[in-house]
Amino acid sequence: MAYLNDHYLKLKAGYLFPEIGRRVKAFCEANPAAAARLIRCGIGDVTEPLPPAVVAALHKAVDEMGARETFKGYGPEQGYEWLRAAIAKNDFRDRGCDVADDEVFVSDGTKCDTGNLLDILGHKNRIAISDPVYPVYVDTNVMAGHTGDANDAGAYARLVYLPCRPSNGFIPTPPKRPVDVIYLCSPNNPTGAAASREQLETWVKYALEHKALLLFDAAYEAYITDPAVPHSIYEIPGARDCAIEFRSFSKNGGFTGTRCAYAVVPKSLNAQTKSGEWKALHPLWLRRTTTKFNGVSYIVQRAAEALYSPEGKAQVRRLIEHYLGNAKVLREGAAKARLKVFGGLNAPYIWAKLPSGVTSWQAFDKILNEANVVITPGSGFGSKGEGYVRISAFNSRANAEEVARRLQAMKW
Amino acid sequence: MAYLNDHYLKLKAGYLFPEIGRRVKAFCEANPAAAARLIRCGIGDVTEPLPPAVVAALHKAVDEMGARETFKGYGPEQGYEWLRAAIAKNDFRDRGCDVADDEVFVSDGTKCDTGNLLDILGHKNRIAISDPVYPVYVDTNVMAGHTGDANDAGAYARLVYLPCRPSNGFIPTPPKRPVDVIYLCSPNNPTGAAASREQLETWVKYALEHKALLLFDAAYEAYITDPAVPHSIYEIPGARDCAIEFRSFSKNGGFTGTRCAYAVVPKSLNAQTKSGEWKALHPLWLRRTTTKFNGVSYIVQRAAEALYSPEGKAQVRRLIEHYLGNAKVLREGAAKARLKVFGGLNAPYIWAKLPSGVTSWQAFDKILNEANVVITPGSGFGSKGEGYVRISAFNSRANAEEVARRLQAMKW
Repeated sequence: MAYLNDHYLKLKAGYLFPEIGRRVKAFCEANPAAAARLIRCGIGDVTEPLPPAVVAALHKAVDEMGARETFKGYGPEQGYEWLRAAIAKNDFRDRGCDVADDEVFVSDGTKCDTGNLLDILGHKNRIAISDPVYPVYVDTNVMAGHTGDANDAGAYARLVYLPCRPSNGFIPTPPKRPVDVIYLCSPNNPTGAAASREQLETWVKYALEHKALLLFDAAYEAYITDPAVPHSIYEIPGARDCAIEFRSFSKNGGFTGTRCAYAVVPKSLNAQTKSGEWKALHPLWLRRTTTKFNGVSYIVQRAAEALYSPEGKAQVRRLIEHYLGNAKVLREGAAKARLKVFGGLNAPYIWAKLPSGVTSWQAFDKILNEANVVITPGSGFGSKGEGYVRISAFNSRANAEEVARRLQAMKW
Repeated sequence: MAYLNDHYLKLKAGYLFPEIGRRVKAFCEANPAAAARLIRCGIGDVTEPLPPAVVAALHKAVDEMGARETFKGYGPEQGYEWLRAAIAKNDFRDRGCDVADDEVFVSDGTKCDTGNLLDILGHKNRIAISDPVYPVYVDTNVMAGHTGDANDAGAYARLVYLPCRPSNGFIPTPPKRPVDVIYLCSPNNPTGAAASREQLETWVKYALEHKALLLFDAAYEAYITDPAVPHSIYEIPGARDCAIEFRSFSKNGGFTGTRCAYAVVPKSLNAQTKSGEWKALHPLWLRRTTTKFNGVSYIVQRAAEALYSPEGKAQVRRLIEHYLGNAKVLREGAAKARLKVFGGLNAPYIWAKLPSGVTSWQAFDKILNEANVVITPGSGFGSKGEGYVRISAFNSRANAEEVARRLQAMKW
């Protein structure tokens, strides 16, 4: 008799984005005129096309796949050497971070990587996450059986929630009770906060002292404008012994529909067995990758490589400037609407504090109804997100300006 | 203190293909002249370029991604509706199988799917696999903690091995002791055997009686030439209540380096909770897919769709005819070398019985040294593969003919 994984039954049905979709659909069906002027600043999806250097690389790779002499079958599961080398050099060694080519694992997404990484970890780990948080960190731990049930507020037993508030700049501080695995996301989704060097040093120190593992999600690294903000956890001495870093081409090259990302697993990173031995995680992740994955499409890997060409880099810079320009417009619009705004300076997300007493979903419905704009309710990211909304800067400039105007016109 | 997944430490170090790679590399370094005439019939990787219909679809999709109006960001994680619809219609409903569009989950590989599927199953299942078997089924269960340690012969405790021999046509028969999850692969990798309708009926009957789950891997479905052989498990009445089917575009469209596949999870398929309730697996797989995966690249999904166009279908047919033509040449060559040959009629693999007393690895070394041909030792697929070798038909016709000539010239 086949058994299912009971842990899945603990998952809350109302996952954030499906619920948003449901409400938007109902609104549009009831209000066709308003639906026509709907602007979406909800999901964090890019809107601008792939950079020309990427398009050219894709066409070239497609032609290679169409000719016997240059056709590519199975590639290395962990990514082609030329892409791993370009990543390690450009994103790390050129910035003074010690990352070897074979510590880079090319994948099809950071969402996938952060979930799949749990495969190589044991079930005894105490897991810490920020609150608010990217829901995937939570849900994948629930599925893996690392939590108990959720309470009425949606918080899962056995997970350690680290509150993020204005007082800590929305970057969590280490908890009093020891934890084994900590998810850090900087620049942060959803709050748009970027961890300072000092904050990251605190976490690396904590991890080394407690022999804990940091899962550092830097999917929004390209949006860092403040020169004092580290781009990689490996800028912090000691991080190679306690941290895995996740990066994505989704939000710099606009690869949300093209699919390419990578994880860095340093060879010096260890975790312990049940019997207390310390062993390297790198061989486990290599084994996981070669056994449960078949590599990213060759043509997509060539597309990612093109992002590191001089043209590709310049084109990515323009994309980032475009979205950060939107963020500026939206920040100003939300501020004029007398919302207190955070984020949007080193990230494509604005985290706006609502007037006292207004819940995130109330604000969602009000903004949808009155401004015909879709944003994301902060409470969907955790209990400490209640009273906030996330506004995404992924849009055309004209739309961002229009959203700013509509937000300003609202009365709270 | 971070803990690792101890189950990974049970995995045997000498995974089949890395060991083949090691021996081939050593041979080539020691014998540069022989290396120059090396022909690889080892790994099951296609050699012919992508069909023209696919290349055209890829170029078109790349252009769409390069223009703002037609750019695609995140798609549905489970695949675009137009691809799911094309699959359900062409591969199933047109063949009389009852499969709905939303029972099709588009993925980046059957290797990934068969491993990931374990996420939604519980840990109490008794798992049955064929022997010989595609190693990924075994290794992913080891990683998930569904087995004990391996013995000296490489067999893992708690796995139920179902022997495949000439006497059962290399298709396993249900075991005496009840099992909960059974992997079936037809047409089979490595033996090239295809399960008859009667054999599949026996398994569906068993699964329904024991409320067990069949994981039916039909990645080589396109190679079926015998009109009596079912193309899908869903041709067997009752299969919708007990079977998940995996299909891939790797071996029909030549997508091994392009990456697209799919799984069919019928909504009528249930498994039980720890407390004995029966629940549908479809919502669990949907949740797993939306939470831990971000969908296949848009351009690759368009490429897969093109395989269902009239031109695409005709081009795939020619690819299959090419590889099956190779299989015929290789079967005849191996038979003339006085090996007893199986498979190669409904599959791109020939499974050749070695003369008595010759081990698989001895044959591997001998064929490498004397014929300068790389094959796969049967023992790498399980203890019942000892005394066999797998010869892959993925090659040019000229290479297949040359391999046949060289095999015939060998003395055993």
